[in-house]
Amino acid sequence: MELRRWPRRNDAESIRARQQALDVDGEVFGHDLTPWAAAQEALTGVAVIPVSVIGPLTVELGEYELREPAGELRESGRSREEIFVPLAHTEGGLSISLYRGARAASESGGFRTYVLHDRITRASCFVCGSTAEAVALARWLEGHAGEMRSFLTEHRDPSISSFAKLREVESHVIGPMCHVLWKWTTGDACGPNMITRNAYALNMGFVMERAPVKPRRAILEANMGGDKKPSFQYFRSGHGKTVLAECTLTEDAVRRVLRTTVDDLLELAWAGTHGAVASGMQSVAFTPASAVAAIFAATGQDLGMVGTSSMAHGTGHGVPGGIHCAIRFPGLEVGTVGGGTTLPYARTWLELIGCAGSGKVYRFAQIVAAAALALEISASAAMATAGSESFFRAHHERGGLR
Amino acid sequence: MELRRWPRRNDAESIRARQQALDVDGEVFGHDLTPWAAAQEALTGVAVIPVSVIGPLTVELGEYELREPAGELRESGRSREEIFVPLAHTEGGLSISLYRGARAASESGGFRTYVLHDRITRASCFVCGSTAEAVALARWLEGHAGEMRSFLTEHRDPSISSFAKLREVESHVIGPMCHVLWKWTTGDACGPNMITRNAYALNMGFVMERAPVKPRRAILEANMGGDKKPSFQYFRSGHGKTVLAECTLTEDAVRRVLRTTVDDLLELAWAGTHGAVASGMQSVAFTPASAVAAIFAATGQDLGMVGTSSMAHGTGHGVPGGIHCAIRFPGLEVGTVGGGTTLPYARTWLELIGCAGSGKVYRFAQIVAAAALALEISASAAMATAGSESFFRAHHERGGLR
Amino acid sequence: MELRRWPRRNDAESIRARQQALDVDGEVFGHDLTPWAAAQEALTGVAVIPVSVIGPLTVELGEYELREPAGELRESGRSREEIFVPLAHTEGGLSISLYRGARAASESGGFRTYVLHDRITRASCFVCGSTAEAVALARWLEGHAGEMRSFLTEHRDPSISSFAKLREVESHVIGPMCHVLWKWTTGDACGPNMITRNAYALNMGFVMERAPVKPRRAILEANMGGDKKPSFQYFRSGHGKTVLAECTLTEDAVRRVLRTTVDDLLELAWAGTHGAVASGMQSVAFTPASAVAAIFAATGQDLGMVGTSSMAHGTGHGVPGGIHCAIRFPGLEVGTVGGGTTLPYARTWLELIGCAGSGKVYRFAQIVAAAALALEISASAAMATAGSESFFRAHHERGGLR
Amino acid sequence: MELRRWPRRNDAESIRARQQALDVDGEVFGHDLTPWAAAQEALTGVAVIPVSVIGPLTVELGEYELREPAGELRESGRSREEIFVPLAHTEGGLSISLYRGARAASESGGFRTYVLHDRITRASCFVCGSTAEAVALARWLEGHAGEMRSFLTEHRDPSISSFAKLREVESHVIGPMCHVLWKWTTGDACGPNMITRNAYALNMGFVMERAPVKPRRAILEANMGGDKKPSFQYFRSGHGKTVLAECTLTEDAVRRVLRTTVDDLLELAWAGTHGAVASGMQSVAFTPASAVAAIFAATGQDLGMVGTSSMAHGTGHGVPGGIHCAIRFPGLEVGTVGGGTTLPYARTWLELIGCAGSGKVYRFAQIVAAAALALEISASAAMATAGSESFFRAHHERGGLR
Repeated sequence: MELRRWPRRNDAESIRARQQALDVDGEVFGHDLTPWAAAQEALTGVAVIPVSVIGPLTVELGEYELREPAGELRESGRSREEIFVPLAHTEGGLSISLYRGARAASESGGFRTYVLHDRITRASCFVCGSTAEAVALARWLEGHAGEMRSFLTEHRDPSISSFAKLREVESHVIGPMCHVLWKWTTGDACGPNMITRNAYALNMGFVMERAPVKPRRAILEANMGGDKKPSFQYFRSGHGKTVLAECTLTEDAVRRVLRTTVDDLLELAWAGTHGAVASGMQSVAFTPASAVAAIFAATGQDLGMVGTSSMAHGTGHGVPGGIHCAIRFPGLEVGTVGGGTTLPYARTWLELIGCAGSGKVYRFAQIVAAAALALEISASAAMATAGSESFFRAHHERGGLR
Repeated sequence: MELRRWPRRNDAESIRARQQALDVDGEVFGHDLTPWAAAQEALTGVAVIPVSVIGPLTVELGEYELREPAGELRESGRSREEIFVPLAHTEGGLSISLYRGARAASESGGFRTYVLHDRITRASCFVCGSTAEAVALARWLEGHAGEMRSFLTEHRDPSISSFAKLREVESHVIGPMCHVLWKWTTGDACGPNMITRNAYALNMGFVMERAPVKPRRAILEANMGGDKKPSFQYFRSGHGKTVLAECTLTEDAVRRVLRTTVDDLLELAWAGTHGAVASGMQSVAFTPASAVAAIFAATGQDLGMVGTSSMAHGTGHGVPGGIHCAIRFPGLEVGTVGGGTTLPYARTWLELIGCAGSGKVYRFAQIVAAAALALEISASAAMATAGSESFFRAHHERGGLR
Repeated sequence: MELRRWPRRNDAESIRARQQALDVDGEVFGHDLTPWAAAQEALTGVAVIPVSVIGPLTVELGEYELREPAGELRESGRSREEIFVPLAHTEGGLSISLYRGARAASESGGFRTYVLHDRITRASCFVCGSTAEAVALARWLEGHAGEMRSFLTEHRDPSISSFAKLREVESHVIGPMCHVLWKWTTGDACGPNMITRNAYALNMGFVMERAPVKPRRAILEANMGGDKKPSFQYFRSGHGKTVLAECTLTEDAVRRVLRTTVDDLLELAWAGTHGAVASGMQSVAFTPASAVAAIFAATGQDLGMVGTSSMAHGTGHGVPGGIHCAIRFPGLEVGTVGGGTTLPYARTWLELIGCAGSGKVYRFAQIVAAAALALEISASAAMATAGSESFFRAHHERGGLR
Repeated sequence: MELRRWPRRNDAESIRARQQALDVDGEVFGHDLTPWAAAQEALTGVAVIPVSVIGPLTVELGEYELREPAGELRESGRSREEIFVPLAHTEGGLSISLYRGARAASESGGFRTYVLHDRITRASCFVCGSTAEAVALARWLEGHAGEMRSFLTEHRDPSISSFAKLREVESHVIGPMCHVLWKWTTGDACGPNMITRNAYALNMGFVMERAPVKPRRAILEANMGGDKKPSFQYFRSGHGKTVLAECTLTEDAVRRVLRTTVDDLLELAWAGTHGAVASGMQSVAFTPASAVAAIFAATGQDLGMVGTSSMAHGTGHGVPGGIHCAIRFPGLEVGTVGGGTTLPYARTWLELIGCAGSGKVYRFAQIVAAAALALEISASAAMATAGSESFFRAHHERGGLR
């Protein structure tokens, strides 16, 4: 095939040209691609991933709203629901394990979830002529957040999104670089593109125009923003929605459903936490990425964010009559509008959990956290029994494909 | 819905019962699920993700074989190919960006890739009565690797996989815990389940039976194994295939294809590396997870491993007449047999790149690395120009969905 | 010797009893210990460390004051000085190397230093009955910072220090734990004890008494406070004084004084930064701890804080006609009053640099940063030349003791 | 004072010239400096730090020898001793706290210590023309460790130390860089200078001369070597002596000596471990640097290594009738010959603990670990009681200086 000839457009002819050029089984070309024509360039076929539905997860969910103008979250209510979650994956044993964890929790009173924080960051970098200039720029930036908010609100440029609201401006000077963390809320969208556009507008339209010290260079993103790479910065302070999930398992549920004991679970939590430290893991958890990835794949989230969204801090703690299990997700990067969420299949799976469209993003983030905690509980139980027999058996019996 | 009644089996009736119980658009139920019946429990429907095909990537690939008995990699040849890669995602701009990077590389002589190392780890933990006992156990374990290899080879237990070969045994004592890193090769499979089963057999059948100090507890995995959580341990020493990709871009390709300059790219590399350090990122790179996730989703890899497989260390370095760009992936957790790779769609997309079935895993790992480097180059170029105009425009024009 | 008889008091008789009980050369007992009798228990003798004095360091220092009530730093002036620094150590080559770096900087216009931030943290932890309770406590804590400030100001308890002022209150919920970061300024003292006492008073006198949710347990410090262990949290956000130092070396000074080239220094900075990332260093620098430890030992700082105070982020950047060198110390934990600073010898060495007593702590922090940058520059130069011959020779000729 | 005139030599006249030039209290000049004239350049005066002696620490120490040719440690015996340790510091409460921990341990049967590993690293970097060349160089290096050992042994260059023995060679390729970790044992010296000289000889005399691919540049140390900056690499794998200390405290000793309970200590260990994770600490421990620094300052160790040597992983674990307490120091960088250890005062304090001179370095490393564990135990107890009253009181009563 000729380098210059590979068509990248998504008209019917280009799509067909690509399909014909590729000598593979037509199965992958068997879907009408029209619904996805705006989703990516050089569209050629589809991937199909099987989806299980597992439930009910008994979850007490919080209802949240962002308070203006500062953008803090306020909990306006809580309600208890039974939810069936879609899981797109091909890992034998995962669905049944999550089911087992959900059952143990349900029999113990269910999960409770909380959204603590909502911010997503784009971090630009202004390279100055000296540290002195970078320090001066940093002070100026931190002192002009209000003006920058007005600039974005009042500007007529159609590329500026009104959904992405600038909340805080934080600088970090290293050598002659003034890195700046633009912190946003993005409504019900995950929002990486809208904050990119708005950050660009700020950089070029406000900072480079008005700063008392003209930077030598503006870089739109220089890796302090937490985009798709796990980092301590956002493990600690959040990127997307910071969500907690908890449940207190009864001894009875631990024994009957999970077939282990509270002591075994506590020993595992202890050894696993120290193992995480010893191997330089940022997260302390067993397999949160499995649940996050499976829900993301079903619901049109950005799969490139599986690693960052799976940063997690899990704990187990003995309480009278049972064990308290909890997990903290500092940065679930999720949306219920925009991106892949409005496309076929994804939209339907979001509807299944009542999370399609506006006003649903905190609900969705909490469901992800609860489902992941269900899997953590079950995976822990499998590893916690003396000799870990049940983990072994579960994999042996059901994991035959791998 | 009744808690105890949710059916988990994959016979036609159970599938139908689940579908009928869920009040959603039938679109997601429209596929015959039979081919996936063994892939997961509680199978209910499908997710469909659009796939672009981008190419050609000009890549000089190495051919590798594992030398027995030690399991080191040996390069047995190199050859140059033009490859078209499938990308399953819904991120506007990603496919075209990867295409642009591939073109710049092709015009500069193409990519070259290397596989350095092949190991995957399962880390068990033996809790002993004291540090003294844990130290004694550690010494015994490290001195009996040969016997353990024989134990696995000679054992008749059908749960033991002959594909997962024990290569090294490393201990790490903390307090009364003797963590042990079982290091394996797994043939052309990614292999998490086979190493789980073999590690279990070692723990229960060899260590707990024969160790001179009987541990109080064996835990199959206590987080030193690198399973689905990024960690420094495996950023440094590898989990799966350790792969390098490089290319030296000419000034001309940088200017014409990427529309930036070598100096701009070098400044970005410098600022982005320091930004990564400042934000506590383990990786130094811009967006490797986007490429990894897109190829993983198309080819039936485990999406829960996107975060770990995307750990990356990228560099840019000025050379006469251009810039040397490279990326190190310490742990691509990939397979070309087993798991989701043999299922419909995934198999076809693997076939497109000549990676379906046995003997293909090193090839596949290299293609992932080259594709990710193509995207890194293009994303860097977009951010590197003064003011990052082209990044902005690319997102503005094509990223409308998000 | 009898376990129960070892005397711990510092009266003359107890001191003599200890000295007589120990069968060692009397040299270490030859000083009158009276001046140190209040500095530690079981005082028995002395250690003597040789001190070099190196200078002049040409430094443009900022003058800073804390603005009330918020406690931000304001720069009120800048002045240029020539300073001679005391270095207590026994590492052959260190003093002369620092001297060389200082000369190169002086010939290039000298160092410039900046204090960006001043906060020290004590992080307590309240263990609650559930995540729900921990979340409720966290919200209450963050909403009552003002009342807590008043509580500390108005309280009559003599254990509460009026020098340690509470500036911000930040919570971090994990499982049922509500960690809380109490952030303080401590005047011219380093202040670990005063913030301990005030944090204790807050925990027991305010939180445990008034919180709407009574925590089950209050832990005064549970490792989020940054005390004596390096951490990303404080590498990023500061613990003590956040100080920057910079200088722009001329090509001429690089060549004549450092006997290397700008290109060599830039290559080293590039390779050394990537080496730091690859080895999981938090800091990017060569040997800041050598300078920090030597000044700390001379001036009565807490040597247990050498590791945390040496966290550093160094950069090198090419500029027309030279190279810009800079270092960021996020957390210099220093004092010019209190602790060991008022004791003999320490006080004198502080006086040498004009840093004894009140109103001197920002000056002192800047001098530490400038001296450390001088050493970084020289150590880099030694490693940067082709083959690193000069580093080799310097160690060979002068490092004979080791 | 004139820049060019500052004398750097240590003849009597130069010393006097420096002293006269500095307008400070003569106290710091009151010692005869002759004994330190070879220890550093520009010697001008002294620092004096008060030293307490605390004991007895009841410790069961291992005796170790390095087995040739591979350099693994072999334990050749164990013996129980009562040791009095010297602590040079000015932190009120530290000595008495360490004493209390030692008493609790003594009453519970004492400490036991183990040396697991002995290696120190110098990491050089060869910058090549491409990744291909760096990969080829890496393979060649790893395949020529034997020849390099012979080169060092047979070479007549007086700068090559026969005490520093090359044990392993490990490469790490990033982009066009071939980093190489030279791993050494250094006898009873800490050894940074001897490994620097030997690494230099290898780089210039062996690699640059004989490698099939001539590197473009050799950098003696590019930050993968763990020199004076804490890093995950060496937290995990060790730099200097890897030492473990343990003791099992009885409930009685916990109650009577430490005035807390086993449950309180376990809760603190749990909360403190999670606090460490949340703040991005590499270490899990409370205050190991305090003990390490105090012993280092008394015994002539390199104070610039306090941060790296204090990397620690502590654990607490409930056992019938008590609590098991342990700490792992992955990299105690200590010596009993060379550096500051042979100088006055330092030598005497080393003699006090039977650690002066050859054949004592493993003993010394174990004493440091046991003393640090004593302090950990006491500091934990102070923080663990409900409300942490005793910690508060201890600081309040004794920490008046700060």
